[in-house]
Formats: sequence, C-alpha cells, structure tokens
Amino acid sequence: MNINGQPWRTIWLEEDGLSVAVIDQTKLPHTLTTSVLNSHDQAAEAISQMIVRGAPLIGVTGAYGLMLAMKHNSSDSSLEQAFAQLNSTRPTAVNLKWALERVRDRLITTPQNQRLDVAREEAKEIAEEDVQMCEAIGDHGLRILAELNQQKASQNPSKPLNILTHCNAGWLATVDWGTALAPIYKAHRSGINVHVWVDETRPRNQGASLTAFELASEGIPHTVIVDNAGGHLMQHGEVDAVIVGSDRTTRRGDVCNKIGTYLKALAAKANDIPFYVALPGSTIDWNIIDGVAEIPIEARSALEVSTITGLNASEGADQCLELIRLTPAGTPCFNPAFDVTPAALVSGLITEKGFIPAEQGAIETMYSK
Amino acid sequence: MNINGQPWRTIWLEEDGLSVAVIDQTKLPHTLTTSVLNSHDQAAEAISQMIVRGAPLIGVTGAYGLMLAMKHNSSDSSLEQAFAQLNSTRPTAVNLKWALERVRDRLITTPQNQRLDVAREEAKEIAEEDVQMCEAIGDHGLRILAELNQQKASQNPSKPLNILTHCNAGWLATVDWGTALAPIYKAHRSGINVHVWVDETRPRNQGASLTAFELASEGIPHTVIVDNAGGHLMQHGEVDAVIVGSDRTTRRGDVCNKIGTYLKALAAKANDIPFYVALPGSTIDWNIIDGVAEIPIEARSALEVSTITGLNASEGADQCLELIRLTPAGTPCFNPAFDVTPAALVSGLITEKGFIPAEQGAIETMYSK
Repeated sequence: MNINGQPWRTIWLEEDGLSVAVIDQTKLPHTLTTSVLNSHDQAAEAISQMIVRGAPLIGVTGAYGLMLAMKHNSSDSSLEQAFAQLNSTRPTAVNLKWALERVRDRLITTPQNQRLDVAREEAKEIAEEDVQMCEAIGDHGLRILAELNQQKASQNPSKPLNILTHCNAGWLATVDWGTALAPIYKAHRSGINVHVWVDETRPRNQGASLTAFELASEGIPHTVIVDNAGGHLMQHGEVDAVIVGSDRTTRRGDVCNKIGTYLKALAAKANDIPFYVALPGSTIDWNIIDGVAEIPIEARSALEVSTITGLNASEGADQCLELIRLTPAGTPCFNPAFDVTPAALVSGLITEKGFIPAEQGAIETMYSK
Repeated sequence: MNINGQPWRTIWLEEDGLSVAVIDQTKLPHTLTTSVLNSHDQAAEAISQMIVRGAPLIGVTGAYGLMLAMKHNSSDSSLEQAFAQLNSTRPTAVNLKWALERVRDRLITTPQNQRLDVAREEAKEIAEEDVQMCEAIGDHGLRILAELNQQKASQNPSKPLNILTHCNAGWLATVDWGTALAPIYKAHRSGINVHVWVDETRPRNQGASLTAFELASEGIPHTVIVDNAGGHLMQHGEVDAVIVGSDRTTRRGDVCNKIGTYLKALAAKANDIPFYVALPGSTIDWNIIDGVAEIPIEARSALEVSTITGLNASEGADQCLELIRLTPAGTPCFNPAFDVTPAALVSGLITEKGFIPAEQGAIETMYSK
C-alpha cells in the first residue's frame, strides 16, 4: 500500500537478491525507517524484537531467513540450525513454522549449490501467495461494502460509509493489503466514500498507532476513538459495518481476536449493524468447535496495562519515545490478550475463497473438510 | 475513607473555621497533597483547575466558597459577585448551582454580621447530607452484595465476590463513601471477601488512577484491566456483578454515564450478570424519558485521546509527570465523554432511598413524582 504516494510492502528482496529489507515496525507510527537483513541471525532478531510482526509477515521473514542462511553455508547442518533458530523466535506463531517447513522440505532434496536460488524462489512465492490471498479477501469484501454503500447512498448520499475496525489487521501485519483493511483499501480505490473509526485498541494501541498510520499513508479518511466509544457511535447510526481480523477461527465460526473484539460484536448485534470477520483459511483451527470453552487465552505482561509508550509531547521537550506509568505504584493489573466472539454474533466471514456465513456447514464446504 | 489507615474526606473545614482544605486531585494517584482555600477566588480556582472534581464535591466546594467570600466582605454585592464567579467555573455541573443557590438564599435574608456563621453552617450541612446520602447508597447496596455473596459462597466458597466497575464513582468524587464504590466499601468492612475489577476507563483513566488509588488506600483487593477486557472476564465467570455510577438518569431509568458503560451493560446482559447503577436521586432528570434520543453527549477535546499523562517510568528518569502522544501526528480523534445505557440493560438502581428496578413506575413511586 502507499506511503507518501509511493507503493510499499513490509518486506522485499534487495536488488542483489542476497539481502532482504523490512520496515522497522518498532519505530512506527512516529518514524518510518527500514532495516536490511543480511543473515539468518538478523532475520531471527527482526522477528524476536518485533521489527516485523503479524503472523503472515513473520512467516515470510522466516522463509527469507533460511535463504540468508543458505547464502553463508548451504550444508544440511546449517539448514537445520537456521530452521531451529528461526522457529524458536515466536514459538506460538503457526505461520512461521509452516513457512519454515515449506522452505526446508524443498531445500533438503535440492543439491547444495542450488539451495540459495531455490530458497529465494520459495520465499518469494510464499510472499506472493500471501499478497494474492489478502487481495482476494479485499475483492470479496469490496462486494459486501459496495452493496452496503448502495443501500446507504439511497438513504444518505452525503454521508460516508462508516466502518469500525479494532486493532491492526492491515498490510503491516502481512506483506501487502492486510486482511480486515483489505476490503477498505479496495473500497477506497474503487471510489467509495469510506471513513474508518479506528479503535485505539488498548493495551498495545495497535489501532491508534499502526492502523491510523496505514490509513493516513493511503489517504483514507479515519478517526481514532477510545475502545469505549464504539457502542455509543453504533447507537447513534454512525457505524455502517464492523470489520475485524481473526487470530484463530473455530470450525463453527467462533472468532478469537484481539481483546475487546467481543464487546464490539455485542454492540453491533444490539444495534443491527453487520459484523464481518476477514480471515485467510490458514487461521481456521479444524480441531476446535467451541472457542470460548476450548481456546486458551494468553495473559500478557501486566506492564502493558500499567505503562504505555509514546512521543514526548510536553512543550519544549525532545521528540523522543518515553515510557510512562498510568497506575499507582504497585497496582495489580491483568492483561488477557484475546477474546472469543461466538459465531452467533458474526454476520459473515470474508475469506480468500469468498464470503460465507459463520456456520460450520458453510465453512467445511468452502474448504472441503 | 482510609488512606494509610487514617480516615480522610475530600474537603474539610480547618480548625479556625475560616479556611477550607481539600485533597489536590490533580496530583493523584502519584502524590497525595492537600490545598488550603482561603478565599472564594481560591475556591473558584480549585473547581476550575479540577483540584476538586465530581459533581457532589464541586457543589460542596462552591458552598464553602461563599463562606470564604463572607469572611472578607459580607455585603449583598460581595455575595452576588462570589455567586456568579463560583457558578461560572463549571457551567454544566447541576449540583454546583443547586448548592450555591441554597447558601445564597439563606444568606440573603440573614443580617450581614451573621452571614459568615450561617454560610459555614449551611455548607457543613450540605457536606454532611452528601455523606449521609452516599452512606445510605452503601447500605442499600450492601444488602444486594451480601445476598450475591451468599449465593456464591454456597457454590464457590474460596473465590472472592468479583465486582467490575467503570470510571470513578468513589469517595474522591463526593465528600466521603462515593456512590458506586460505597456498597463495595460497606461489603469489605462487613467482612465480605470482595475483589474489584477496575476498568482503566480511557481516555482520562479515572479507573486506573483514582479508583485504583481509593481501593488500595482502603486495602480492598483489586486489579486494573483495560476497558477491552471486561467482556472476556464475564464470559469466563470472573465477574459476579457490575456496579457503576450515573451522571444523569432518565425518568424511566436510562443511565447516562462515562463512555464505555454501555458496552459493559451489553456484556453483562449477554452473560446473565447483574448490572447495578448506584445514584443519588439528584441525578434523575424528570424531564427526560429516552436517554439515547434526548441526552446530548458532550464531545471533549481530541487531545484526551491522542495524548496521555503519566509518571516517567524510563530507567533512571526523574519521577515527574510527562505528557506523551500516542497517535501519528495530525491524526483526527473523536472523544464523546458519555454514553447511555438503556433501562432494559439495568438490573436495578441503588439509591439513597433504597433498591428499585430501573422502571418509570418504581422510580416515580420512590421519589413520589
């Protein structure tokens, strides 16, 4: 997607084909800088330091990491060592292991002197497939939004199509396009007058930082709100649809996503507003039916609640990042990272294969399981 | 309530009877300091600078402000000038005007040489009445919590009674006891094993700062959570009741309270958890029935969303308050301050006169309107 009128991706192969560059996401939204990765050590560090984040992007970075390992030493033991090192950076990221295994399985049957080239092609292919999958989600979502927009235009032609989103399921979490934001990018580019309500998404504020940065960079009208405000806006007709991403989707369509998603789904239901989830099929966990009962929810550090980082905004201060404490000293905090939205609250799933209801039969049929 | 084992109020008459002291709430929760008010100018400044906040406390401060004016000059013109000045500090605070009128109406018929003494007695009486009203809310709420606790103890004797609250409707907003927190203080003092989930309450974080400070000072177990987390906790049986305050209550029991209250009410309803509102009768607006349609919601400064203040927590940094920016430069933000929870989502109103359903008939009968 665009930044300052130029198309960007989150990760790309440098011209020499021997190194990889990424946007350094630890500096966003306040500074846009890139990092060049020359070795699998640097790729592993980029993942563990969250210079890259988002499951699809982590997977692609891992794949390129194996290419970088092959550049230095294309032996079997080098391959296994790099695989283990990269795989251990974010042990719960399913895409990472999947991408690493895909590259390794091709390399292991490839002569050593061709491994660098094969790894490069495989990593590029994984990246391209991700872009195509996200773009397909965008195209399927666009049809939904175009329909909503037509309904709205017949009643309120002067008002934009107002979409609320939670957290960041945009292109910064993938290679390009994103998931929940892909239909919004497509709608904007197709000329629909779209406006996005951006939940700030405490505690890590990915909405206020990354989603706001993405939308501003692409020139899409948007407004950041606190997570508390969405229900009020829905009550007053200021939201036409909600679109969020999914970290894990159950066989029957329960959606595990960033903490707070469930509250927005309840408010959407109460106010008769469509609540869509955009997801690639890879997030579906076929072994799980009941998300609330079966998905363990990670509790992250209490420091994410009690402290927050931002750009010093006091008058006369340096424009540097500062960490501040919000709570009284010693206050206990609890920080569940995700919640589960039951399928009954989901109006539909926007997948790379098409739009379906959040129902077990429809999901199984679409993916032929 | 207690701070470090000592009973405190938010405002009190100094021993000489000629000045008034208050807790400086702009410094909380990080520092506990008091300010002495010697003139009605200083009282007006304490209100406008939010050294005191919360409708009941503002009213009491205004009443004492008239006493301070009478100390310097007890003429009619001094009285009218002080009234106008104090009344203009927070023009939308209903309690302020009510308290000021009550003192002025008594003074206007009082000989000038007795006005200081009469003003002192009237202001003290307003403060005492507020304490009694809050304590009565606490007593009525205690009965509800004791009942819930008995039910819970029969199933889960080892677990505390978990109460979720939003924003700060505690003693710092009143003279003592508070409204939503009064039943919790009473429950804790009566030996009930109570634990409070404290919504941080973005954007101004009154939960993470003031409610957490109050509960810690009284020794009540509590945990701060982001506003996004409450729905997840309710889904998993970790919340036994919700208690919030009310800024304005309609004739049929719709409740206008801090933004985000509505989302918690929806989640409580969906998970069969009682949702109580604690309020003095003075918040009932008898002219309004439908809160969503009829109550205008104040939009506050976008800076409250895009920036936040806290104690510098970087290693080696001074322990000073810092303002930081959370969003990309120039990001538009929208900041509605309140929302309306329809009566249908409210399990009951805890008032100074007793506990009633959130229904027009019950409300009118209790207040004989």
